[in-house]
Amino acid sequence: MSPNTEVLNTVDTGLDGVPVCTSDISLTTVDKNGNPILLYRGYSIYDLIKGPFEETVYLLLYGALPSRDELHAFRYELNGYGRLNQKILEHLRSYPENVHMMDMLMTSLSFARMWDADYTNSLWQTPKMDEELARLLLNAGVRLGAKIPMLMTAGWRIRNGLEPIAPDPHGSFAANILRMLGIREDPELEMALNTILILYLDHTINCSTFTALVVESSMTDPYTPLIAAGAPLKGVRHGGANELAAMMFEEIGTPDRAAHYVRNKLKSGELVFGFGHRLPHYKHKKESRVTIAERIGRPLAQKKGMGHLFEIYDIISRIMLKEKDRAPNADLPICILLKLLGIPRELNTPIFQASRHFGWLANILRQRRAKGPLFRPTQEYTGPDIDEMRAYVPLDMR
Amino acid sequence: MSPNTEVLNTVDTGLDGVPVCTSDISLTTVDKNGNPILLYRGYSIYDLIKGPFEETVYLLLYGALPSRDELHAFRYELNGYGRLNQKILEHLRSYPENVHMMDMLMTSLSFARMWDADYTNSLWQTPKMDEELARLLLNAGVRLGAKIPMLMTAGWRIRNGLEPIAPDPHGSFAANILRMLGIREDPELEMALNTILILYLDHTINCSTFTALVVESSMTDPYTPLIAAGAPLKGVRHGGANELAAMMFEEIGTPDRAAHYVRNKLKSGELVFGFGHRLPHYKHKKESRVTIAERIGRPLAQKKGMGHLFEIYDIISRIMLKEKDRAPNADLPICILLKLLGIPRELNTPIFQASRHFGWLANILRQRRAKGPLFRPTQEYTGPDIDEMRAYVPLDMR
Repeated sequence: MSPNTEVLNTVDTGLDGVPVCTSDISLTTVDKNGNPILLYRGYSIYDLIKGPFEETVYLLLYGALPSRDELHAFRYELNGYGRLNQKILEHLRSYPENVHMMDMLMTSLSFARMWDADYTNSLWQTPKMDEELARLLLNAGVRLGAKIPMLMTAGWRIRNGLEPIAPDPHGSFAANILRMLGIREDPELEMALNTILILYLDHTINCSTFTALVVESSMTDPYTPLIAAGAPLKGVRHGGANELAAMMFEEIGTPDRAAHYVRNKLKSGELVFGFGHRLPHYKHKKESRVTIAERIGRPLAQKKGMGHLFEIYDIISRIMLKEKDRAPNADLPICILLKLLGIPRELNTPIFQASRHFGWLANILRQRRAKGPLFRPTQEYTGPDIDEMRAYVPLDMR
Repeated sequence: MSPNTEVLNTVDTGLDGVPVCTSDISLTTVDKNGNPILLYRGYSIYDLIKGPFEETVYLLLYGALPSRDELHAFRYELNGYGRLNQKILEHLRSYPENVHMMDMLMTSLSFARMWDADYTNSLWQTPKMDEELARLLLNAGVRLGAKIPMLMTAGWRIRNGLEPIAPDPHGSFAANILRMLGIREDPELEMALNTILILYLDHTINCSTFTALVVESSMTDPYTPLIAAGAPLKGVRHGGANELAAMMFEEIGTPDRAAHYVRNKLKSGELVFGFGHRLPHYKHKKESRVTIAERIGRPLAQKKGMGHLFEIYDIISRIMLKEKDRAPNADLPICILLKLLGIPRELNTPIFQASRHFGWLANILRQRRAKGPLFRPTQEYTGPDIDEMRAYVPLDMR
């Protein structure tokens, strides 16, 4: 394997296989037939994609599926807190034209939380671990997450000379993202985005979730870990790979160029995005998120007259499996789905965050209740020790 | 020990004793007499505090002490990049009155980097690990760090109805922080702040440095890990403890109330800030940073007519050692020093970040050169597994 491919599909160290918590939130495993499957709180994602995203978010945060009334109230809460005040809208107008949408999301989220109802709650500076504080943390985290769709869509529209569109108070999370982007209402598109959001919600102790846990362990406020977790999500070894995979499809263009493109990349030791995963049972076999995204994506691509995208997908998948023994990861079919929905590529990772935010929240909530300790690992020191201490020569004598 | 004290002075798990990297940057150890000592790249901090902060930053980033010319050029670079453009100054005027200074610093830093010369460099999306990229990362990180003193002081002044003060292009890092806060120039005060900055610069794989490493491992741009690392620094188990320790001195007020205050806190199971450290050789014995800060602080307190602060300090230190077997940590004498300098308590943690930023930078630079893998640990799963999978009941039937 080339050194650069190794860089992304890394399997060594990086705390690989080291447990950092106990958790009952999500599980990546294999079913009776040996096929990879993802469970959220013991439910199969094959089942959960039948319902709305908010239902699965509720399941992750509260531990049980909501009743109709609970779901209704939760959706209403999300939509209400999604609205931005004048100060935040003005802030969104102050970004430079060339801003990366992930930077805009992280920065504006960091700004927007300053108007949250519990922003000045002095309890955040009290290192307590009780149910009252856990509840406060949960509610503040939900209100913060509710703002993400509005921040990313309003930010995007402003950057493109358009006015922001407000959410529909009765609309679903997925429908509102499409609505606020100015995409025509369509149940099939809403369903597709709803599925993507559920697939991206949580995935055991991935790099961004781990970041949220490390930050939360310092006992800061509830907003800060959730904002910081967007930082590694932007990385090309994590959520950022989705945007790069989408760029790859644009570069390839037509199916007849796909094989040549991939073989060239492999020959020159460059990366082919959308392949490889740290989890061993995801390496050679298509995982359940890939299977689901393909199942929704293929008919939608046909209908939209964009069948060539899955032709390219199949060609590069075949070559990568043969040459590198790598199955596509979730980013590859999902970046096609997002394209079919008419979502601009620059929003691929922000949409990932709109979903994963609630996975981060479920995880920091679990950690707060588990009374987890501060993360402070150690190092293998390789420099001069006390016996080899270096003599300091003052500046004048250097 | 009470449960809440345990929360802060935690010694279990949290990757305690688990090495996550090899490093030659800093070492916490004991000298021949068994006294704790901190080394930066093999130099004793007892020596390094003789020089300017910028010298030790240079040592951490480049591996060797600078010549006079190198130091001069580096200082000039820092001062030049510290200046803020009109857009950033306007941004600083948009914060709510009740903003926490750490949130203002993290958010404005996240905003300010969008005007950096290398902000749109497409190399950030290339997962390469070569010397060219390491150099780019180093330079961008230095430029980002140069902005911290100006952002925190201008932000503070604006919040308090004052105009920002520009840095002196020839001034030292410490002198410029005092200058921009409107504190009268005084070599003794400059020296004291210079020492604090050196003491805070790096401290093996602490929680914020670890956060920077985890974020960097996702292969994002150079700014993002350095901004994210401020998140746990704000936490009360990390840098935020400094602000809370300062509040404790205000609450106590006079030495005659100190013993009663601490005993009351201990009796009710509440925390006494500024005591305890995860590193075992720092637990019962004053570490070198404490020794140095006391040595500078005591005469300065006398001179300023604020000797009562060290009287309180000694009383609570004696009680905590007797009752809890805990020596003061660096936060305790440093928060007195900052008070003696006339620095507002709300800037205690931002000043910590102004220094530690460069420690984070040295660490992510080391990791990039070491071609470190993505941090993706694992979990002990305690929920329902595939055999106990929960049956999904559709919403209509719930």
